[in-house]
Amino acid sequence: MSKFFTENLKNLTPYTPGEQPKDMQYIKLNTNESPFAPSKAVSDAVLRESQKLQLYSDPECTSVRKELARIYGVDFDQVIVTNGSDEVLNFAFMAFADDKSPLLFPNITYGFYPVFAELNRIPYTEVPLKSDFTIDINDYIGVNKTVVIANPNAPTGIALSIEDIEKIVKSNPDNVVIIDEAYVDFGAKSAVSLINKYDNLLVVQTFSKSRSMAGARLGFAIGNKSLIADLNTIRYSTNPYNVNRMTDAAGAAALIDNDYYMDNCKTIIENREWTVNELKKLGFEVLESKANFVFAKSDKIDGEKLYLELKNRGILVRHFTKECICQYNRITIGTLEQMQKLIETISLILKEN
Amino acid sequence: MSKFFTENLKNLTPYTPGEQPKDMQYIKLNTNESPFAPSKAVSDAVLRESQKLQLYSDPECTSVRKELARIYGVDFDQVIVTNGSDEVLNFAFMAFADDKSPLLFPNITYGFYPVFAELNRIPYTEVPLKSDFTIDINDYIGVNKTVVIANPNAPTGIALSIEDIEKIVKSNPDNVVIIDEAYVDFGAKSAVSLINKYDNLLVVQTFSKSRSMAGARLGFAIGNKSLIADLNTIRYSTNPYNVNRMTDAAGAAALIDNDYYMDNCKTIIENREWTVNELKKLGFEVLESKANFVFAKSDKIDGEKLYLELKNRGILVRHFTKECICQYNRITIGTLEQMQKLIETISLILKEN
Repeated sequence: MSKFFTENLKNLTPYTPGEQPKDMQYIKLNTNESPFAPSKAVSDAVLRESQKLQLYSDPECTSVRKELARIYGVDFDQVIVTNGSDEVLNFAFMAFADDKSPLLFPNITYGFYPVFAELNRIPYTEVPLKSDFTIDINDYIGVNKTVVIANPNAPTGIALSIEDIEKIVKSNPDNVVIIDEAYVDFGAKSAVSLINKYDNLLVVQTFSKSRSMAGARLGFAIGNKSLIADLNTIRYSTNPYNVNRMTDAAGAAALIDNDYYMDNCKTIIENREWTVNELKKLGFEVLESKANFVFAKSDKIDGEKLYLELKNRGILVRHFTKECICQYNRITIGTLEQMQKLIETISLILKEN
Repeated sequence: MSKFFTENLKNLTPYTPGEQPKDMQYIKLNTNESPFAPSKAVSDAVLRESQKLQLYSDPECTSVRKELARIYGVDFDQVIVTNGSDEVLNFAFMAFADDKSPLLFPNITYGFYPVFAELNRIPYTEVPLKSDFTIDINDYIGVNKTVVIANPNAPTGIALSIEDIEKIVKSNPDNVVIIDEAYVDFGAKSAVSLINKYDNLLVVQTFSKSRSMAGARLGFAIGNKSLIADLNTIRYSTNPYNVNRMTDAAGAAALIDNDYYMDNCKTIIENREWTVNELKKLGFEVLESKANFVFAKSDKIDGEKLYLELKNRGILVRHFTKECICQYNRITIGTLEQMQKLIETISLILKEN
């Protein structure tokens, strides 16, 4: 830290992204990426834009917002797009949470929420999950706080029903409820259907998982148009050209090819069910996942040890050191071949230990 | 504004980007873009990455940072790259300015500085320029504030000498001095050469102007490695994957082709000198520009009227309504053909008025 760094942020602990080692070629099951490349229409759109990079991108992001409005059946001004969904989450924290509307989210969830809270100096409370890692919705009913829930949750993969989400939104009319649906396309139900009913509901999604665009950086939020206008006030005060030309065009092209991506989601769901079965056969306890990853542990091997043994053999999974989850590993669902290799390798490791 | 918007930011007035009208094809001389497309190596790099978009980008941005370190003769850890230079300016304000180190910048300069200050709730003072629109460096000597200077300044185009920049940096050892060199490649001298001498100097640049990549969003800062580490603390607390795969690769490719871009800068400088001459022949007063734009006014026609007449005839320039500069227009330097068309059109307008 330099002597110039502001006292205000001296205790800030940044987020730690999943490792991206460059020493060898791994089977990467650690950052919940899609195993499927984007469709050809995406490459074509990107190539076209690459020849016009001297011109600023469209600050309105018209191309991709139009397609999002069409796919989700909402109005153009009910959509905002950002440089990944992390950005719109950060904007929403800045816009809707403060000392009077502090934050409330589960103690086991996406690790960026407390970081955004610290960065923006917003008070926050972390609510413990139940012992089975589910959310007790009573903890979020009528709390008069800015609620943030990842649905499905990460790293557990467990989803709340749309009815439970609605109860939370309805019971907190004076605060915004942010539902982070990064993984919703793998089996949970989206709350987008509720945005015209509740002016305090903001639904956040991403192109990083189900739409094979983690490397393009494209996130979005859908909500009441005055919530979206507030987020645009922040966006135009931060980085009006936050989404580059290539990503804007790539996102629009991907939505025109939506069937390709939704078919990939079906394949990933099948591969997930296969993987869960195989892990259970090997004696693992696996939480019920509606995401493109599973969270699993085994009494036969320490969580960190399994992570390290897999890494030694060329397979990366994600291990968290937080005490209550340190026996688990979060495993991204890839192709069937990748999952077969994973199961084979785990079998070998278990035999050798 | 929704009823949920935080009181903290209720007075925030967002930045207004230059207009991007879609009603017809304009000669765009209003947002200081390059008239030259990026080189073929950039398209090739982008196409290659477009097939791997399912994978996250490199949070270290190794490709482009390596090339920046090589071109500018600095260490890898003396460089940070961001989603446009607006992002790193915002990060620097967050990291290095606060109540104890308030901000100081000219009253006529890049319009985003007061917005970032408001957004981050940092006190700031705007120092009037001299009547000839130059900066009086005495206003910035030993001020014990976080100084921000665009060099060359915008929208005037006037540059400070490297000796004057050094005096300001040297006289404020307890505060960071941020030199925003968005337009430096068009004739001013960069302060990058001073970063190993002063631990309080941060130099910000962009690929948007001289490197034909406004639509790709790529900015960077160079400074002492502990300043860069602080900026990375903010970056990893905001958006660790802030630069997408395509832009990272495009930036590296552009730097390998650096001669192409520096030759384009020479052409723009020649076109600027031609344009200044022609404008003077038409009776305009033109400030001495070291940027890829000129700032000009004429007693023969009102500034706003000229802007509107040009727009009616298919040429966009940038007009600001702020009182002391409302007689001027900021005109981006494009190709010689574009500038010839501009001069022809202005002649016609003057004749008709």
